[in-house]
Amino acid sequence: MRAVDLIRKKRDSGELSREEINFLVSGYTRGEIPDYQMAAWLMAAWIRGLNRAEIAALTEVMLHSGEVVNHSEIPGKKVDKHSTGGIGDKTSLILAPIVAAGGLTVPMISGRGLGHTGGTLDKLEAIPGFNVNLSLEEFRRVLRKCGMALIGQTAEVAPADKKIYALRDVTSTVENIGLICASIMSKKLAEGIDALVLDVKTGSGAFMKKEEDAIRLAEVMVETGKSMGKKVVALITGMDQPLGRMAGHSNEVVESIEVLKGGGPGDLRDLSLDLSAWMFFLGERTKSVEEGRHLAETMIATGQALEKFRQGIQLQGGDERVIDEPERLPTARLHAQVLSSASGFVASTNCEQFGIALAMLGGGREKKEDHIDHAVGLEFHKRIGDRVEKGEPLATIHYNSDAKLAEAKKRIADSYHIGQEAPREKHALVRRLIGA
Amino acid sequence: MRAVDLIRKKRDSGELSREEINFLVSGYTRGEIPDYQMAAWLMAAWIRGLNRAEIAALTEVMLHSGEVVNHSEIPGKKVDKHSTGGIGDKTSLILAPIVAAGGLTVPMISGRGLGHTGGTLDKLEAIPGFNVNLSLEEFRRVLRKCGMALIGQTAEVAPADKKIYALRDVTSTVENIGLICASIMSKKLAEGIDALVLDVKTGSGAFMKKEEDAIRLAEVMVETGKSMGKKVVALITGMDQPLGRMAGHSNEVVESIEVLKGGGPGDLRDLSLDLSAWMFFLGERTKSVEEGRHLAETMIATGQALEKFRQGIQLQGGDERVIDEPERLPTARLHAQVLSSASGFVASTNCEQFGIALAMLGGGREKKEDHIDHAVGLEFHKRIGDRVEKGEPLATIHYNSDAKLAEAKKRIADSYHIGQEAPREKHALVRRLIGA
Repeated sequence: MRAVDLIRKKRDSGELSREEINFLVSGYTRGEIPDYQMAAWLMAAWIRGLNRAEIAALTEVMLHSGEVVNHSEIPGKKVDKHSTGGIGDKTSLILAPIVAAGGLTVPMISGRGLGHTGGTLDKLEAIPGFNVNLSLEEFRRVLRKCGMALIGQTAEVAPADKKIYALRDVTSTVENIGLICASIMSKKLAEGIDALVLDVKTGSGAFMKKEEDAIRLAEVMVETGKSMGKKVVALITGMDQPLGRMAGHSNEVVESIEVLKGGGPGDLRDLSLDLSAWMFFLGERTKSVEEGRHLAETMIATGQALEKFRQGIQLQGGDERVIDEPERLPTARLHAQVLSSASGFVASTNCEQFGIALAMLGGGREKKEDHIDHAVGLEFHKRIGDRVEKGEPLATIHYNSDAKLAEAKKRIADSYHIGQEAPREKHALVRRLIGA
Repeated sequence: MRAVDLIRKKRDSGELSREEINFLVSGYTRGEIPDYQMAAWLMAAWIRGLNRAEIAALTEVMLHSGEVVNHSEIPGKKVDKHSTGGIGDKTSLILAPIVAAGGLTVPMISGRGLGHTGGTLDKLEAIPGFNVNLSLEEFRRVLRKCGMALIGQTAEVAPADKKIYALRDVTSTVENIGLICASIMSKKLAEGIDALVLDVKTGSGAFMKKEEDAIRLAEVMVETGKSMGKKVVALITGMDQPLGRMAGHSNEVVESIEVLKGGGPGDLRDLSLDLSAWMFFLGERTKSVEEGRHLAETMIATGQALEKFRQGIQLQGGDERVIDEPERLPTARLHAQVLSSASGFVASTNCEQFGIALAMLGGGREKKEDHIDHAVGLEFHKRIGDRVEKGEPLATIHYNSDAKLAEAKKRIADSYHIGQEAPREKHALVRRLIGA
């Protein structure tokens, strides 16, 4: 078998066998197939597409490229959630403590932010001392003690994905359903979970701007997960505007704690409860999703979820006092308001631009090596459908350096589309359920 | 400007500007853009295609990536020919002396064989002592002295093409009209020529199997050359069977000398004269192509072409005695005959397979690093339309090692398709003229 022939085959729209995909991915991971051949193959795959069998094979080969974690010594079901990412999407910080408090185990391996979306690891690192770089041994210890642990991808887990993802990033081969599915599912299935709830975002702030693309991605991921014997469902959820009122790292920790205390914005609270409910149900903790939702609400109402979060922070070396003293989180020195230039109703937002503005101010990464300022953040005052008067604040910027403030301000202001009438349709946050 | 954005643009079927192509190719040639980004871009360009403006820009940028040879100190017009390659295609060895003897200058920078086709440089190296690796200074000296010189691509000429071609070879991005055109034309135009005759092959032994593809490639090359102020025509010629009776390096030198002596097979002689005629006409040596053909015939009849070849060999360090003593060329120790398994008429040949059989026996390269046995060759006894009896020889193999003899024999035998009736249509060798 030769890499050059497998590149030609995909270039000419052929279907690769499991053996051929294994040859390519294993050879690349071991360094026997060079970057330039993998890059050519990835571009051919991006343009020509991968069918279901190829996606399943790719996922499985990537999954088995490293250690598949075994949590069988921890009793009970292990469940996780994965979101395709958006602005203000902090549900992992809320549902992990809820579900762990409710009696299941949540072994969550998360990613960092890149481009317009934030990453769970970066948000956790806003908490002073919080260590996401646990070894697999430490990961298991924390999981056994409190039922939840949130760590980064270790070198042992899915090394093929790590190497391929880095290459896709610099060769414009990221946004492809097959490649995305294999990347996400190989990592998640390597966590040693029994069930997975997927939150596939769609709208102006999501990778998948069109709902039909989000549905296709969700279907492929659900099918791939099920074919490997896991329980998987996907919720297609709206990302036409930020989730909750806060974006930025410290900001999102603060808002997550608010929800765990029983407060917080309705949309964020609702989605966190929905996702928790599905995790309880798939993890066989409850007999129905409704019962799961009730259990999740109880975990918040009784304060058990909050206490679980406190314990989790402590076990991962973080300063758990941030729960009652948010001023212990990095705080921005300066604030600026983005004012509306017109009166009317918020008709829509170009949500992705909020994330780009945030990154521009230092609160996100443009390149992988970029340092993040955890204190930088955005606070959104108006949601779609809200009445707004000319000169009224649309958003508040929390920042430390005004180098790109003017540009960020303009970008945010331009991303609110103000109409003369209230928008007629109001989309539900959860649009559709795949695989249930 | 960022490479990743230019990759995305081509991936999404966008058109790259001249500045963008320059950024990409210059950056790659200087080593600032890595192989893997160029590989991804090449695959996107292969699949999505390049339009005429992009091909012209790519050619020009590659042409100017190195030295553009200036022969202005040599009086008169400089003309060249380029063939897209086939089996037994040795016209360069014949027409260069004809045209130089007729008074024009032929500064020919040629390539080596790879895969099923042979290369002019390899054929010349069958002549003991012949040195194709002249510096640009030596190249000019030989040209001034005898009006012809045949050398390999130096490091100074079109380095972008050299680097990109090597990458295309290992990433399955070779067979694309835009990329082929830019590769050929950037090298040829860097030779400092005034006019170029293209021999674009079509048929079972050519890269372009379909005539319509050959025509498209010819049109694009002619247009690109003309847009840079050069006189260019393309002849679309048949490669459904070997050109002449001989393939292999020593063999082809022998047959070329036969033609220069006034003999040789009719098809090879005819095509060599036609190509020479066009070179004389485009180089303004004659007022018409017919007059050019007459001049070419005279150069053979008077022995001037043969003497020019002798002088050329001598000036490039070769043993010119091979002209009268062909046994001075490397000669194979062994001979084997390929016999017909049926009686009838040769209906067609799978011509590419002859070249593969030749390479397999050591008379060609499968990989770039392979050593060539110049003595290995094939002699074809039957042409399309010829009557053949069962057991009669179709071809003779000249070889030194019988390691793959059986396989090569079978491959050659299987490539002759014997029918019960003589094929009705007889295709002209020159099918079409583009750009005249």
